[in-house]
Amino acid sequence: MEDNGPLKEALAATSAAIERVLDPFLALPGGPEDRVVEAMRYSVFSGGKRLRPFLVLASAELFGVDRTQALRVAAAIECIHCFSLVHDDLPAMDDDDLRRGQPTVHKAFDEATAILAGDALQSLAFEILSSEETHSDPFVRLTLVNELARASGHHGMVGGQIIDLTADRYDMDENFIHRLQQMKTGALISFSAEAGAIMGHASKAARASIQGYARDLGIAFQIADDLLDVEGEEHEVGKAVGKDADAGKATLVSLMGLERARNQARMLSDQAIEHLAGFDDKASLLRAVAHFAINRRA
Amino acid sequence: MEDNGPLKEALAATSAAIERVLDPFLALPGGPEDRVVEAMRYSVFSGGKRLRPFLVLASAELFGVDRTQALRVAAAIECIHCFSLVHDDLPAMDDDDLRRGQPTVHKAFDEATAILAGDALQSLAFEILSSEETHSDPFVRLTLVNELARASGHHGMVGGQIIDLTADRYDMDENFIHRLQQMKTGALISFSAEAGAIMGHASKAARASIQGYARDLGIAFQIADDLLDVEGEEHEVGKAVGKDADAGKATLVSLMGLERARNQARMLSDQAIEHLAGFDDKASLLRAVAHFAINRRA
Repeated sequence: MEDNGPLKEALAATSAAIERVLDPFLALPGGPEDRVVEAMRYSVFSGGKRLRPFLVLASAELFGVDRTQALRVAAAIECIHCFSLVHDDLPAMDDDDLRRGQPTVHKAFDEATAILAGDALQSLAFEILSSEETHSDPFVRLTLVNELARASGHHGMVGGQIIDLTADRYDMDENFIHRLQQMKTGALISFSAEAGAIMGHASKAARASIQGYARDLGIAFQIADDLLDVEGEEHEVGKAVGKDADAGKATLVSLMGLERARNQARMLSDQAIEHLAGFDDKASLLRAVAHFAINRRA
Repeated sequence: MEDNGPLKEALAATSAAIERVLDPFLALPGGPEDRVVEAMRYSVFSGGKRLRPFLVLASAELFGVDRTQALRVAAAIECIHCFSLVHDDLPAMDDDDLRRGQPTVHKAFDEATAILAGDALQSLAFEILSSEETHSDPFVRLTLVNELARASGHHGMVGGQIIDLTADRYDMDENFIHRLQQMKTGALISFSAEAGAIMGHASKAARASIQGYARDLGIAFQIADDLLDVEGEEHEVGKAVGKDADAGKATLVSLMGLERARNQARMLSDQAIEHLAGFDDKASLLRAVAHFAINRRA
């Protein structure tokens, strides 16, 4: 296990910074609709790794993007991520009681409130991205909206989740799982890393490098997640572990075995870093994320 | 009852036209994620009045907006409307089995699929609005995205739905119900009518007239809905009737009584039309909608 101390500090700082961005958007209106806003706050202010926001900030730094603006994009992406967690945890979906060591939103509130809080978090993401303060170039804002919408919808995150829910009907080989994960988590992770390139008007070549980085990082991150589900301790991971095995659900880890899966994750992390070869020290945060993705305990 | 024949034809033509816009966006990918796309298609291709799309087209015509572009905006708004219906019908929310005379999405598919189909319909709306084909002016596209997001989220539709779900905890007077309905259905109806003004770069004064029209129309429409719940026949209305009374739920109709409610709806419809006094014959579709809102049987 490497020393992730400095990165952990940076992740914590990111978390605090995006909470400051979201706080005014989620001010309690002071009416009977407060309940849904409280649930939205409960979801977005409950910690989490903030990997996606951190990727936005790291790629924004690489392309010389204003940090205040990058934080808004990071906050919007975290709204989408949190909305997906709130809905995925619902009884009709993964039926999870615990998230980040706390009761899930439908447990702390109720199912209807959880569904609505997720819905409103999605709307909020697009409200933030389309606001003038997010970027001075309207075409950048539109690209951010359009690509986030596509990463979130039936070609991306939602499509991946429906595949995951119905996966037991299919013969799940490695290709099947790769595609599932590319849609379910890869699309949003890729968009997070690309956001800085979009905001910084990066060249086509630079953007392709970031895309390659993000694709490999996304798979490495997911394998590490599956490894944690097998090897992790519930009190460290902050959610139920062993769920995949209990559900008889194939993962890359169950198909490859622990040893091959660990090697594959390491190889992908190295490969992700190789995509950054053309960049100088400004890409060091992105490199650190690739190390962190496979060396975390939660 | 007036003769709404010509308007009904126009509404049916609108319905067919926005289905043609949505069809390619909802092409089946041919993978295991087809299920969620089938549920999205089931929701958006199942008829309905298409009031909101029609409002977009009517206001677009008033402001000289290209119909092809207006149809895309109309389709996006219908995606948001359908997403809200799919989620509102869920067992954890209004628990409805019937919608437009057909099984609701969670009955025809299952709850998880219904939640995800609603989520992806929301994403799709923003994907469509942010696309270049929707309007040549990027600032118009951004305004459409931003205002639709705010009309849909916790300050608008979602906020209204949480108030509706928890309304029995409050002393519901007319003001309370007005605010609830302004958020739950009024915000999206207003945005639909304003969309044409936004697309047509309408003057501030013209936009204010449309806002006034849409506000009055929205309330009239809602009172007519409540009247149908009391007086309508299930086979005509296409969904369960008498639900509000069975649930002991106060509506403007239960607070005002049938006679006052009918008069109020008529007064609001007239008032909506008065806001259009400054416009010529090009506003005749909007005037027809105001008549239709209170004279429909479903």
